[in-house]
Amino acid sequence: MNFPSKLIENAVEELAKLPGVGRKTALRLVLHLLKNETEDTRLLSEALLKMRSEITYCQTCHNISDTEICNICANPLRDHSILCVVSDIRDVIAIENTGQYKGVYHVLGGVISPIEGIGPSDLNIASLIDRLPESEIKEIVLAVSPTMEGDTTAFYITRKLRDLPVRITSIARGVPVGGELEYTDEITLGRSIVERTSYSK
Amino acid sequence: MNFPSKLIENAVEELAKLPGVGRKTALRLVLHLLKNETEDTRLLSEALLKMRSEITYCQTCHNISDTEICNICANPLRDHSILCVVSDIRDVIAIENTGQYKGVYHVLGGVISPIEGIGPSDLNIASLIDRLPESEIKEIVLAVSPTMEGDTTAFYITRKLRDLPVRITSIARGVPVGGELEYTDEITLGRSIVERTSYSK
Repeated sequence: MNFPSKLIENAVEELAKLPGVGRKTALRLVLHLLKNETEDTRLLSEALLKMRSEITYCQTCHNISDTEICNICANPLRDHSILCVVSDIRDVIAIENTGQYKGVYHVLGGVISPIEGIGPSDLNIASLIDRLPESEIKEIVLAVSPTMEGDTTAFYITRKLRDLPVRITSIARGVPVGGELEYTDEITLGRSIVERTSYSK
Repeated sequence: MNFPSKLIENAVEELAKLPGVGRKTALRLVLHLLKNETEDTRLLSEALLKMRSEITYCQTCHNISDTEICNICANPLRDHSILCVVSDIRDVIAIENTGQYKGVYHVLGGVISPIEGIGPSDLNIASLIDRLPESEIKEIVLAVSPTMEGDTTAFYITRKLRDLPVRITSIARGVPVGGELEYTDEITLGRSIVERTSYSK
């Protein structure tokens, strides 16, 4: 694609580096910015730069935070005896949006993946183990994705924590709510039978 | 959606103003920027702002340009006797990429749309009429989209130019190359029969 201006070309190239944004989409975004006020582009540009350069992470749970200790860790109304281990900040946002969880979090910052060269030392696993003894945590919920890497990470953490007096649980895996049984893949459906829950004791 | 940080929220809100970018996509982009170096965000942010604040338009054809007269208008190798009228800068890029057109352009900056309150005076139609007498233009190709608004614009321009000694043509409308006849909509197929072209004279 040839562009009539170096400025446009440069903006398109930079936008096209974002995931899911191709050069055609990038050009559409650039032309949209050109149609609108310079002020709008300035706001966008400043918001991105400010976000990237001023962002801090919670010293306890490694979640994104504007303060040293994030809102969730600092909230006395949350249940500090239950800790949910997630791989990503996105997972914290997703679980928070369900409104079903009142405990605190620990963000690993990824999952163990030998293919991508990510080992346990690249993740916030050491700080997870460090924070346990001096805390009131009684249960750890492993909420990692049910993939090969996620399962490896969960297995590694479980092994590391086995001598500590904490209960380790995992989020339930099974047929999604609203899902049709016949369209559920075999592994999920199989697992939902093996890990069936009882209505009555 | 609740965000753990005002900085993130702000960046997401600004990105979500772009066309085709929802809040979920915006969050994905923001987390991508967070994963990468601050330098990458700085480059993106600066490219956008520089593009928006320093962009200029060609004084002759209103195409985007880094100079007063754009590369196309200033190029002596192009055929200055044929002028293609398009509604948008995007159309110039699209036609240029075909490699089939060697003339010059005139960018209207939109189409006549009474619903959106865009009249002929909001478009670069006056400057189109002004540039004709002192130029060597012999043919004007109207390359506006085949919509109600596009057709209205083409009709308006044709009426304005009828007393001038120029030939007015339109880009061909018909069945797209590679398209199946049976899947072509009736209006396009009908038009392709009415405006059939002859193989032999």
